[in-house]
Amino acid sequence: MSSAKTFAFRPRGSKAEVETGLDFEPKFDADGLVPAIVTDARSGEVLMFAFMNAEALGLSMETGIVHFWSRSRAALWKKGAESGNVFKIVEMRTDCDQDVIWLRVTVEGDGHACHTGRRSCFYRLIAVGDGAGEASQLSLAPDADDA
Amino acid sequence: MSSAKTFAFRPRGSKAEVETGLDFEPKFDADGLVPAIVTDARSGEVLMFAFMNAEALGLSMETGIVHFWSRSRAALWKKGAESGNVFKIVEMRTDCDQDVIWLRVTVEGDGHACHTGRRSCFYRLIAVGDGAGEASQLSLAPDADDA
Repeated sequence: MSSAKTFAFRPRGSKAEVETGLDFEPKFDADGLVPAIVTDARSGEVLMFAFMNAEALGLSMETGIVHFWSRSRAALWKKGAESGNVFKIVEMRTDCDQDVIWLRVTVEGDGHACHTGRRSCFYRLIAVGDGAGEASQLSLAPDADDA
Repeated sequence: MSSAKTFAFRPRGSKAEVETGLDFEPKFDADGLVPAIVTDARSGEVLMFAFMNAEALGLSMETGIVHFWSRSRAALWKKGAESGNVFKIVEMRTDCDQDVIWLRVTVEGDGHACHTGRRSCFYRLIAVGDGAGEASQLSLAPDADDA
């Protein structure tokens, strides 16, 4: 097992620098993590949501392949390393506060991003409006593939 | 000021129930929050990322209008209440683990989701590949509108 590579991103500047500047100064939370949203580069569908630590973010930027930090396993997680469903980065963005990462990707392998075997992790709809409350039922999205 | 309405969502079931069931059993983190991804219902573009507590999630489901929890102000936050750029929910989804919310919305008012006056908060690209590292520069996305 190779030792972790250390990535030290730039310190945060003023609010104006963070919002309007072109220096990448990502904000990591108290646990050293930044949220990452993954969408399909073609369809725009949200495929997955996970977290990155500095190493996962740095490796994603260097290699063009999405790496996360697995909170449950407390380990660096190259998405698809076992399944082959690697996320290849087409475009990477950050938001106004530079505290979120958005990745537009293509999914290698069999194209299934979700560990349940589905194309996307977001295969269920939440009811909205009339009577939708705490005891709400989900429904399978029309575009959800089988698993 | 009216007192906060209490929303008590269903307790979490087993991993299998959460992943394959149709009971909505959202997971809130140690701070009582669940991440929420907002995309444009037509273009698929990611517009914003924020957090919801149980009240914000319940109100979003009841009213069809997106509410967040503002961590900086420690207050319920009806997005667009002041600017008029309210997020009207077209579709709401959750993921396999039911610990993330995805909202497909239309933006009312002048259509600008970001507080900087842009359509989306994600107006800057992060360099990927050759030489991209901790000292990386951002670039303005070609589709970023002015602010």
